[in-house]
Amino acid sequence: MTTLTTQVAIIGGGPSGLLLSQLLNKAGIDTVILERATRDHVLSRIRAGILEWGTVELLREAGVDARMDKEGIPHDGCYLTDEELMVHIDFKGLTGKQVMVYGQTEVTTDLYNAQAAMGTTVLHEVSDVEIHDLDQAKSYVDFTHEGTRKRLECLYVAGCDGFHGVSRKTIPEEKRKEFERVYPFGWLGILSETPPVNDELIYSNSRHGFALASMRNENLVRYYVQVPLTDKVEDWSDQRFWDEFSRRIPSEAASRLVTGPSIEKSIAPLRSFVSEPLRWGNLFLVGDSAHIVPPTGAKGLNLAASDVYYLYTALIDAVKGKTSGIDEYSTRALARIWKAMRFSWQMTTMLHRFDGEDAFAEQMRKATLNHLATSETARRDLAENYIGLPF
Amino acid sequence: MTTLTTQVAIIGGGPSGLLLSQLLNKAGIDTVILERATRDHVLSRIRAGILEWGTVELLREAGVDARMDKEGIPHDGCYLTDEELMVHIDFKGLTGKQVMVYGQTEVTTDLYNAQAAMGTTVLHEVSDVEIHDLDQAKSYVDFTHEGTRKRLECLYVAGCDGFHGVSRKTIPEEKRKEFERVYPFGWLGILSETPPVNDELIYSNSRHGFALASMRNENLVRYYVQVPLTDKVEDWSDQRFWDEFSRRIPSEAASRLVTGPSIEKSIAPLRSFVSEPLRWGNLFLVGDSAHIVPPTGAKGLNLAASDVYYLYTALIDAVKGKTSGIDEYSTRALARIWKAMRFSWQMTTMLHRFDGEDAFAEQMRKATLNHLATSETARRDLAENYIGLPF
Repeated sequence: MTTLTTQVAIIGGGPSGLLLSQLLNKAGIDTVILERATRDHVLSRIRAGILEWGTVELLREAGVDARMDKEGIPHDGCYLTDEELMVHIDFKGLTGKQVMVYGQTEVTTDLYNAQAAMGTTVLHEVSDVEIHDLDQAKSYVDFTHEGTRKRLECLYVAGCDGFHGVSRKTIPEEKRKEFERVYPFGWLGILSETPPVNDELIYSNSRHGFALASMRNENLVRYYVQVPLTDKVEDWSDQRFWDEFSRRIPSEAASRLVTGPSIEKSIAPLRSFVSEPLRWGNLFLVGDSAHIVPPTGAKGLNLAASDVYYLYTALIDAVKGKTSGIDEYSTRALARIWKAMRFSWQMTTMLHRFDGEDAFAEQMRKATLNHLATSETARRDLAENYIGLPF
Repeated sequence: MTTLTTQVAIIGGGPSGLLLSQLLNKAGIDTVILERATRDHVLSRIRAGILEWGTVELLREAGVDARMDKEGIPHDGCYLTDEELMVHIDFKGLTGKQVMVYGQTEVTTDLYNAQAAMGTTVLHEVSDVEIHDLDQAKSYVDFTHEGTRKRLECLYVAGCDGFHGVSRKTIPEEKRKEFERVYPFGWLGILSETPPVNDELIYSNSRHGFALASMRNENLVRYYVQVPLTDKVEDWSDQRFWDEFSRRIPSEAASRLVTGPSIEKSIAPLRSFVSEPLRWGNLFLVGDSAHIVPPTGAKGLNLAASDVYYLYTALIDAVKGKTSGIDEYSTRALARIWKAMRFSWQMTTMLHRFDGEDAFAEQMRKATLNHLATSETARRDLAENYIGLPF
C-alpha cells in the first residue's frame, strides 16, 4: 500500500480545508488535502458571498488578499423590509466596520492558486475515506485515489468535508450530541449577469414570502426567493423567477430591476444543525462538517473561517508540544458557533412566512422589524452580529 | 330613571380608571367611575409591582407621589439566570434610568385617597352596564346601582374594565381584530412577610422551570414559580412552594432564603392578547380591556399607564373641540403596545421551559442568555425595553 506522511491530514478541499492548509503551510506545518470531487466541481459550487471583516483579515493573514482587495466590494450596510417598513442597518455607522462582498467561488479559486504556488499536496477524486487510530499518538487515513488504496499517516486530522462527509460520522454516534432545526421551506437562488437592483443587500419579507437581493459584483447578481420544499428547479422558468422576485422586493427597487438569463439556478433547504463535540482524539471538525446555519445572515462560510482560526493557531502550538489550544478548540469554537446559530435562527424567523402560523406570530415579526426601525440599540445589536462577533 | 351627567364616563375603578379620572379632574374635566366590585375587593387584588419611570412621572403629574416617594424602592437593575449563567442587567448604567418597586395595591390606594380628596364620583358594585349611542354627539351608559337602574350621560366613555369587561365587547365583533397567544403554563405567586432573598429581582430559568424572586418592600416578598395550567392553588402547600422555589433560584440566593407563611397565593395563566382598534366612536379602550401581556417583563400596569397618558391628553383637547388627539389615540397607543407585546413575548420565551420543545429550542434559549451575558448592546436593548420606551 502506498503510504504518505504529513503532519495534518485535511479531509475536504473546500474553502475551510484550503484556508486551514494555507495558514498551516505558511507556518511551516505540512498538510495533505483529500478531496472527493474534482477541482472544477469544487469551483463550480455557488455558495456564500458575504465575508465578515474577521474573515477578510484571516484571508489577508493567509496571503490571499490581492484579488479580493481589487474585486471585492465593501458594504457599509443592508436593508430589511416588509411591506410597511424599510429599515436600513448602517454597519459602518453603528459598529465602525463593514462586510466584504466577494463570492465563495472566488475565495476558493484564490486559495487553490495560493496552494499551487506553495506546492502543497491536494488530492482530488479521493473516495472511501476511513479515519483510524484517533486515540493513538499517530493516526492514519486510508483512501482510494487513482484506482489504488493509499494510506496517509498524520499527527492530526482536520474534518473539513461538510455535512455529508465522513469526518463527523467517524465520531461514535453515542458520543455525539446533535441539535437540529429544519425549516419548512427552501431558497431558490439564481445567478445572472445583470447589474444589481440595489447597491446594498435587501432582505425582504413580503406577503408572497421572503426574497433576498444580493450581488457578487457590478454585473453579477445573486437573487433568492423562499419556495416550498416540494418545489423543483424545473418548476421555475427564468420568467417565473423574475416575476416572483419582482413582486417580493419593494416596488421602488423592483422599478430598477434588470432581468436577464440565469447562469445558475438551484434550490437549497434551510437547516440549523450543530454536532458536539468538535474534537474526537486527533480529529477536529471544522465548518459544515459540524454545523449548518440557514443562509439568512450569511454566517456559513464565516463560521468555517473562525473555526479555522481557532484550529490553526491551536495546531501550530500542538506540533510544538503545547496542547492547551487543541484541548480548548471545541469549547472556544462552539461558543462562537452557538451565537451565530442564534443570530441566523432569529433572522430566519423574523424574515420568513411560516405555513400555518397564527396572526399573533405575524404581529411579532412585524413588531420585531418595527423595533429595529425605532431603536438604534436594536439596530446596533443586529449590526454587531452581522459584521461578525470577534474571534 | 335616575340620570347622572358627566363629561367622561369611566367603566372600571382599577388603577387605569382611577388614574385617568385623577388626571382629567385635575384638568377640570368631570368624570364618573362605574366599578363592578367593592372598593375592598379592588384593593385586595395583588398584581404588578414594578413601575417604569414614565409611569412614576405620570403618577407625580396626577399628584399621587407622596407615599410612593417615601415607600417605593428604586431598582437599578435585575438578574436573569439559568443554571449556567447569571446575567446582571444594569438599568442605571445602561440607560441612566431606574424602575420603581411599588405595588399596584399601593398605587390603587393612593389613587382612591386622591379621588376622595378631590370629591370625584366613584360608584361601586355597579352591574349590568350597557354602553349606548357611541356614534352620537352624546353617549350614555345604563347600569344598575343600589338596586335601581340608572343612566349616565356623557361625551366620552373610557373602557378601563379589564379583559372580562363589557367595554371591548361593545365594539361589534366583526369590527374587532383580535390577536392571542396562550402560553402552556401559569405562574403560581405568593406574598409573604419575609425579607427579600435579593435586593434586585431575579428571573430564573432552571431545569425545574421558571421562578421569579420579586419584592414589594423590605419585609414583603412576591415570589413566583411556573406551574402546569392544570395545577390548582390547593395543590401547593406553603412548604411545597418554598421547596420548589428554593431549587429553582441560584443556590447562592437560595442559601439566603427566609421562608414564612404565605399571606396570599394564586395561579395566573400567561396570555398575550391585543384587540384592535382601541377607539369605537366615543369609546376608548384602556389597559387590560384591550390588551394583556404575560407578566414576564412587568409591562401590564405600565402599558395601562401609557394608554392613560395618550388618552387623557387627547380628551383634554377633545372637550375643547380639538379632536386630533382622540383621532390618533388608537394608533399611538397601539404602536407602543405592540412593542411591549414583543418584549414580553420574548422575555417569556427566553425564560420558560415549554413542554415538548426540542433540544434545539433549548439551545436557542441558552444562546439568547449567553448573548446577553457577552454583549453590552444586547443588555442595553433589554434594559431600554424594561425601564420603558418613551410615551
